[in-house]
Amino acid sequence: MTKPIWIKHASQLATLASNINGPRTKEAMSDLGIIEDGSMWVEDGIIQAVGSTKDLEKLYSGKLHEAEVVNAAGHLITPGLVDPHTHVVYGGSREQEFEMRLQGATYMDIMNTGGGIHATTRMTREATEGELIEQTTRRLDSFLAHGVTTIEGKSGYGMNVETELKQLRVMKKLQEQHMIDIVPTFMGAHAVPPEYKGREDEFIEYLIREMLPVVAEEKLAEFNDVFCEKGVYTPEQSERILEAGKRFGLIPKIHADEIEPYGGAELAARIGAISAEHLLKASEAGIKAMANSGTIACLLPATALYLREEAAAGRKMIDCGVPVAISTDCNPGSSPTTSMPLVMNLACISMRLTPAESLTAATYNAACAINRQEQVGSLEVGKQADIVLWNVKSYQELQYLFGVNHVKTVWKNGVKVV
Amino acid sequence: MTKPIWIKHASQLATLASNINGPRTKEAMSDLGIIEDGSMWVEDGIIQAVGSTKDLEKLYSGKLHEAEVVNAAGHLITPGLVDPHTHVVYGGSREQEFEMRLQGATYMDIMNTGGGIHATTRMTREATEGELIEQTTRRLDSFLAHGVTTIEGKSGYGMNVETELKQLRVMKKLQEQHMIDIVPTFMGAHAVPPEYKGREDEFIEYLIREMLPVVAEEKLAEFNDVFCEKGVYTPEQSERILEAGKRFGLIPKIHADEIEPYGGAELAARIGAISAEHLLKASEAGIKAMANSGTIACLLPATALYLREEAAAGRKMIDCGVPVAISTDCNPGSSPTTSMPLVMNLACISMRLTPAESLTAATYNAACAINRQEQVGSLEVGKQADIVLWNVKSYQELQYLFGVNHVKTVWKNGVKVV
Ligand SMILES: [Zn+2]
Ligand SMILES: [Zn+2]
Repeated sequence: MTKPIWIKHASQLATLASNINGPRTKEAMSDLGIIEDGSMWVEDGIIQAVGSTKDLEKLYSGKLHEAEVVNAAGHLITPGLVDPHTHVVYGGSREQEFEMRLQGATYMDIMNTGGGIHATTRMTREATEGELIEQTTRRLDSFLAHGVTTIEGKSGYGMNVETELKQLRVMKKLQEQHMIDIVPTFMGAHAVPPEYKGREDEFIEYLIREMLPVVAEEKLAEFNDVFCEKGVYTPEQSERILEAGKRFGLIPKIHADEIEPYGGAELAARIGAISAEHLLKASEAGIKAMANSGTIACLLPATALYLREEAAAGRKMIDCGVPVAISTDCNPGSSPTTSMPLVMNLACISMRLTPAESLTAATYNAACAINRQEQVGSLEVGKQADIVLWNVKSYQELQYLFGVNHVKTVWKNGVKVV
Repeated sequence: MTKPIWIKHASQLATLASNINGPRTKEAMSDLGIIEDGSMWVEDGIIQAVGSTKDLEKLYSGKLHEAEVVNAAGHLITPGLVDPHTHVVYGGSREQEFEMRLQGATYMDIMNTGGGIHATTRMTREATEGELIEQTTRRLDSFLAHGVTTIEGKSGYGMNVETELKQLRVMKKLQEQHMIDIVPTFMGAHAVPPEYKGREDEFIEYLIREMLPVVAEEKLAEFNDVFCEKGVYTPEQSERILEAGKRFGLIPKIHADEIEPYGGAELAARIGAISAEHLLKASEAGIKAMANSGTIACLLPATALYLREEAAAGRKMIDCGVPVAISTDCNPGSSPTTSMPLVMNLACISMRLTPAESLTAATYNAACAINRQEQVGSLEVGKQADIVLWNVKSYQELQYLFGVNHVKTVWKNGVKVV
């Protein structure tokens, strides 16, 4: 029997509680359910009570002495952050390529020295499960240290049966071994594997016939994602892959309109994708369609920064009624970071989200984007005790004092992990 | 007597040692003086030896058992970072203003509710020395936690004799009380105080007659800085202030060409300023003049990010032969951050510096910008033992895995402070 935990006197307890079920839009994204002088009671890894310190003192008057007490006076408390889009399982590292690029190497120079996504594919194919687990564990530790208690993870650096399954099995093992929660997505169509160049439809056949059944059979993924972009997969091909996934019970996600407007947002809305990713170049019509369908825009401002691109139109999407989530996009090519706090800051700075909207996008809406809103993403009775205590007094300060990891303490399922 | 410290087996020991005295330019900015399997011997707060682990094992063969051993295998070691441009001493906080701005408030809305720089001036004037020391101490602790062991600090939120002196005296006290080194700059001409609006020349008179003599008399500053920008101080007025400072032994610095090309870079070169700051809009001629005079460009990419401005032309400046340093610009209005690691990352991402150049800009060249290159900024025998051990294996990884504070251990004058 572990002791109950009583966290009390938080200057702001941002519960993210609300009567709205499902992804929050417009004004609802600004409602953080703040309790001043806030208190929480945690037992058995579950949140038992949330309220003012006075309320909890009454509620637990006979049990207060049994609890481990955490005095959070002067500190903000939020739900554990949720990162709904990562490529966290990969082999190798590409810092040499980053240096080459800054020394003036062109894209072709880098490809010629074996760099780019195909380098990661090669290194991921070559890595053993044990090596992938070891490398990924370091990244998961870093996520926890940045206040992230649940992440999504995608396969997609294999693009053949063996390696796609290896990535997904690594996630399954890490879900068991590591404190963080990992929600798996199958993304066999992350790129066109070099050996299928010009024969995309054959690869799609192979993916549908050889990969999807095993992924479904072994219950290795909940979502099915595809890179819908000119020169990669067309909207028609993407739809075929995602519809096939649906027949195996996998919920669609789409990497859409990152490089040019290509109908990705429209497709996401039409086929009922739970989320569309990137959306730097999403069309007006695509944004409206997503607002109507309630498709979550999963925006990745750290990737835009790293690639020196204009960030997605987060402000406009919210104003149009699209529910917005944000993510690191953690991957070795276009966003080698694990810092959701920085992503929250960038959502404000580069996309004009308000501090409150940014926190909603990194917690409750992020949980919705991976279908975990019943378990995590807000501090409510019965949910997992995934809680972050910050070295700032308010959610405003959390976004304002930017570029710094303000995490002080992290509880995952009621266990102090940072 | 404290034990000697023997740090050994660093995968990369980036010494920044070189035969070049004074700020480094062009290719010299890429020479990090890397030692693989590197070792250092520290005694009495001073670096006693730097070399390969084998070399040091020979050199200290009789004394190895006396030392406190730090095994740095798999870790990068660099000099303590130097931040050559901060406004770290200020009263109050402006996170509400950040939120208002993102909620759509205009500049005038914010000024009307008492926001902007004048809000900080008011709060700094109102704060007691004790309050300023307490608030600043928290920021200095955060700098240390981010691997920064020496910072410059500017006055300039007083703009009257009492408050300017109060800010500088706070720095003097903190230099004694806090482990970090603070190098003080007088910046009475940080803005035009509201009570002197339209009477700038009168304020300059007052500054020269009333402030400079006391600053010099009490030895409260080493540098004299001015905000040279349209609508603030003209190049002529700036020159007058800086020439007056020179007569009191203060070395000139200039906030130049941040908002539009205004001849600030040219002025910096002409009057022998040690550095010019910001330079987002510096002219071609100004950059050439700085290259010729050897004036250091102190670039502030976190400020550009926060203000959504295009970053300074760091790549071009280096290619033209300007010595480049980088800094947080830590201040409550345009860059409320203490993360030099993020600034290094942004120097690569936004200004196209290479990982090596970025590290030089944050260490040796930064030390040159505040005239401390004899004491800090590189790991060489006889210098202060200001050392950072990082949770990455190489300087390439330090810049590549962006947005994360990779600091593992920090020694300041040979004392472990993080
Ligand atoms: Zn992605
Ligand atoms: Zn400044």
